[in-house]
Amino acid sequence: MNTLGSFTIRKLTGLSAFRTGMFRLLRSVSGITVAQIDVEVAKLLELKLRLGGDDVKHQFVLKTPKGTRDYNPKQMAIREKVFNTIVSCFKRHGAETIDTPVFELKETLTGKYGEDSKLIYDLKDQGGELLSLRYDLTVPFARFLAMNKISNIKRYHIAKVYRRDNPAMTRGRYREFYQCDFDIAGHYDPMIPDAECLRIVSEILGELDLGDFHIKVNDRRILDGMFAVCGVPDDKFRTICSTVDKLDKMCWEDVKNEMVKEKGLSEEAADMIGQYVSMQGGMDLAVRLLEDPKMSQSKQACAGLSDMKQLFSYLELFQVTDKVVFDLSLARGLDYYTGVIYEAMLGPAGATPPPPPPPQAGAPKAEESLSVGSVAGGGRYDGLVGMFDPKGRAVPCVGVSIGVERIFSILEQKAEAEKVRTTEVQVLVASAQKNLLEERLRLVTELWNAGIKAESMFKKNPKLLSQLQHCEESGIPLVAILGEQELKNGMVKLRTVATREEVDVSRADLIEEIRKRTSPV
Amino acid sequence: MNTLGSFTIRKLTGLSAFRTGMFRLLRSVSGITVAQIDVEVAKLLELKLRLGGDDVKHQFVLKTPKGTRDYNPKQMAIREKVFNTIVSCFKRHGAETIDTPVFELKETLTGKYGEDSKLIYDLKDQGGELLSLRYDLTVPFARFLAMNKISNIKRYHIAKVYRRDNPAMTRGRYREFYQCDFDIAGHYDPMIPDAECLRIVSEILGELDLGDFHIKVNDRRILDGMFAVCGVPDDKFRTICSTVDKLDKMCWEDVKNEMVKEKGLSEEAADMIGQYVSMQGGMDLAVRLLEDPKMSQSKQACAGLSDMKQLFSYLELFQVTDKVVFDLSLARGLDYYTGVIYEAMLGPAGATPPPPPPPQAGAPKAEESLSVGSVAGGGRYDGLVGMFDPKGRAVPCVGVSIGVERIFSILEQKAEAEKVRTTEVQVLVASAQKNLLEERLRLVTELWNAGIKAESMFKKNPKLLSQLQHCEESGIPLVAILGEQELKNGMVKLRTVATREEVDVSRADLIEEIRKRTSPV
Repeated sequence: MNTLGSFTIRKLTGLSAFRTGMFRLLRSVSGITVAQIDVEVAKLLELKLRLGGDDVKHQFVLKTPKGTRDYNPKQMAIREKVFNTIVSCFKRHGAETIDTPVFELKETLTGKYGEDSKLIYDLKDQGGELLSLRYDLTVPFARFLAMNKISNIKRYHIAKVYRRDNPAMTRGRYREFYQCDFDIAGHYDPMIPDAECLRIVSEILGELDLGDFHIKVNDRRILDGMFAVCGVPDDKFRTICSTVDKLDKMCWEDVKNEMVKEKGLSEEAADMIGQYVSMQGGMDLAVRLLEDPKMSQSKQACAGLSDMKQLFSYLELFQVTDKVVFDLSLARGLDYYTGVIYEAMLGPAGATPPPPPPPQAGAPKAEESLSVGSVAGGGRYDGLVGMFDPKGRAVPCVGVSIGVERIFSILEQKAEAEKVRTTEVQVLVASAQKNLLEERLRLVTELWNAGIKAESMFKKNPKLLSQLQHCEESGIPLVAILGEQELKNGMVKLRTVATREEVDVSRADLIEEIRKRTSPV
Repeated sequence: MNTLGSFTIRKLTGLSAFRTGMFRLLRSVSGITVAQIDVEVAKLLELKLRLGGDDVKHQFVLKTPKGTRDYNPKQMAIREKVFNTIVSCFKRHGAETIDTPVFELKETLTGKYGEDSKLIYDLKDQGGELLSLRYDLTVPFARFLAMNKISNIKRYHIAKVYRRDNPAMTRGRYREFYQCDFDIAGHYDPMIPDAECLRIVSEILGELDLGDFHIKVNDRRILDGMFAVCGVPDDKFRTICSTVDKLDKMCWEDVKNEMVKEKGLSEEAADMIGQYVSMQGGMDLAVRLLEDPKMSQSKQACAGLSDMKQLFSYLELFQVTDKVVFDLSLARGLDYYTGVIYEAMLGPAGATPPPPPPPQAGAPKAEESLSVGSVAGGGRYDGLVGMFDPKGRAVPCVGVSIGVERIFSILEQKAEAEKVRTTEVQVLVASAQKNLLEERLRLVTELWNAGIKAESMFKKNPKLLSQLQHCEESGIPLVAILGEQELKNGMVKLRTVATREEVDVSRADLIEEIRKRTSPV
């Protein structure tokens, strides 16, 4: 037996003796409280520190944390374009914006996400308040409304949220990811703000040029009413609902199996649900279901169905009925929804299983063709703000969240082969001979003073070729070339990089000339 | 003795028995390791959970965490304006942008911030990697460069960073706050990128219209050389340096006292330092010190001083020498600086103590007149990237960080009495009579289709007065009013809110008319 082996055994003996002693000790102590345990834990941790830190010394790893990524300049250029499109749309619809801290008091998030609460990142208790990273932007929004007693607002919020989920980064699923939320809070006439949210999703997905898409809508009340008339016991609504939610990933047979075998629903009830959840349509379907002998028995379902009818009449005025499908199988997970719910998918309506992503540059990969499903989602949550208000005052809300990470990953794939500019430099100030650094700096200063985006290389004597190559690589359209002759004549040689054409411009006209050649057409 | 009392005593008895037993146990166990302690700690915490959580039940508090704040729409409008100014400047100088995760592996941050490491927020160990919130954007930038083997880049990064500091929120000091960093990485000829950073600070502070400002520059090598020739022992450089750093808050007498009485420096050395740190100037001062009999004995100081001379020659070409002061008392805290350092302050140069903030709307408050000092800072750090590179390859860097939180708080104070628009809506679609909701939605859709920023109220029958009031309150410049007469004639009444002037416009000309009246002059 070698030294290491005997050492290990000695440690194990020590451990087992310690553990036995510990349990004997705990049993022998009557009335021990958690506060006392805290004290003892602190003592043990101090002992640990004195023993010299962790047994296993970590090796230094050069990486970002699991499930996160850096954005390089090219990815940032794509991200900026997407955000500009989204923000323009939110602003076109009159939204203000707010921001909230990246962490909230832990108790602010407690009890808002059901099962998913286990995915919340907590901060270490370093003394002071217990904090958690935000899990979405909706709960901080509701906290903000209650805290500031705001009873109506149309706001957007673009920020990162955090979930200790199993990341699938190639498909745009991260532990740190952006949400782009637009919400309308306030007491209004039914379905007008809800319809505007759908119009917004439609505008954004259209403008982002992601190919065909459709938006499924349903209503929490229609789902609940349907479960009731199908004979689902009240206490099984939520669990059956979460099974129905899997219909976009599983076939009906498997979903039915889960309902009947795992969740103990009767076969008849399951079959009846099966008939309803296969229904898709528009206003016509809402009208038909209002006359359905079973559905019409549920007050809740009827309320949801008349609202759905009303919703479609507004969607028609908003010119988006071709994009929206009333789909009884849509059942979004989050607990806080109370009315309309919706989810946008890429691909044409009615495609099952999920539609393929839009045409990509490069060869399509089989495993990725199923990768992009939902790209936006939301709904009405009339009870959430009341949970924060000391007097329980309700502020009805409806909102939508754009799933930009999936959109980024589609657009990044598309742009893989393309050249994307990562700076906006209009002109490089270059020199054709040596010893002209000062003249270059003088000229680039003139350009900056005039608001021109300009740069000059940080070398005293760069070669002209390397200056021109820099322009080619980073897409700078113009070069202002200084030489001794030009300086003598008060001229600058202005070169168009793409055509290699060169013209002599007088120093006085240079700024005007650059503006003319770089202004967007 | 009441029940509670006896309960407490019983608990205490239990605790003391437990503790005694614990120590006996720990002593009796030979070879206990930290891994074993971890196991026992976990067991105790589980027991705690079974006992029912913390003894003290927290009361629910509706607030943001200590040292953080929400941004309301007005604050966001100010923030957006500031960011636009800053980003425009960064882009004018040819910068790309990147983003990094809000948290890093804990070990990435370890050993980078010296004393201040205690201010880092750690995440709770929930299994997996140990994480910490970023403390600045510089260390993540260096990690990014090393990880991606990037040897030159000009990049900006605007994001929030986190410090468990004592917040002074009225003065713009928070635990969560924005940094706006611009850095130039790469092997270049000396002082050209350094000078550009100073030009950038100068452009930004000028454009933000914060009143007078000046930028102090110094060099880590000049400081170290000065300490050497003044007879400061090598091992006291850092601590004496951090005392010198207090000269912007303390008078010389107090600084000297700290050096001599607290830090054991000789009185002569302190006095000699006192002579140097009172020196301010431009290129002339660098030239003079290069000939100073003492300073010229330090190779380091001479290197710093010739670079300073060179720097000022570039600053002259960049037209910013009127804003920059070579000040030997400037000594920035962070360990990683290796060359030039600088810090921008509001107010004219030479003002001591810190200058008052710019004229404010409302009465000036005495305690706030000292509140705003440094609004930007930075320097050269040639060694940081090498700390991350597996082969220690160095990438020289110089950068600047704009202290936007202080800038926000100045501009927020200025805007306190002002009305700031928080939306960009150009036109409200209103109705003069009842039952025109559908017509309003039809028209607002036409406007959205044309890219006009437009909204309509979410009520079926809003009063015309309340629609006009909404425009007044949120600064919407135009109202498109529909009435039955107008609909019959294919007209819309277009009202200018400010002047109350109304004109009848044909439906076909409406979009053109709105564009004409809302295009920026």
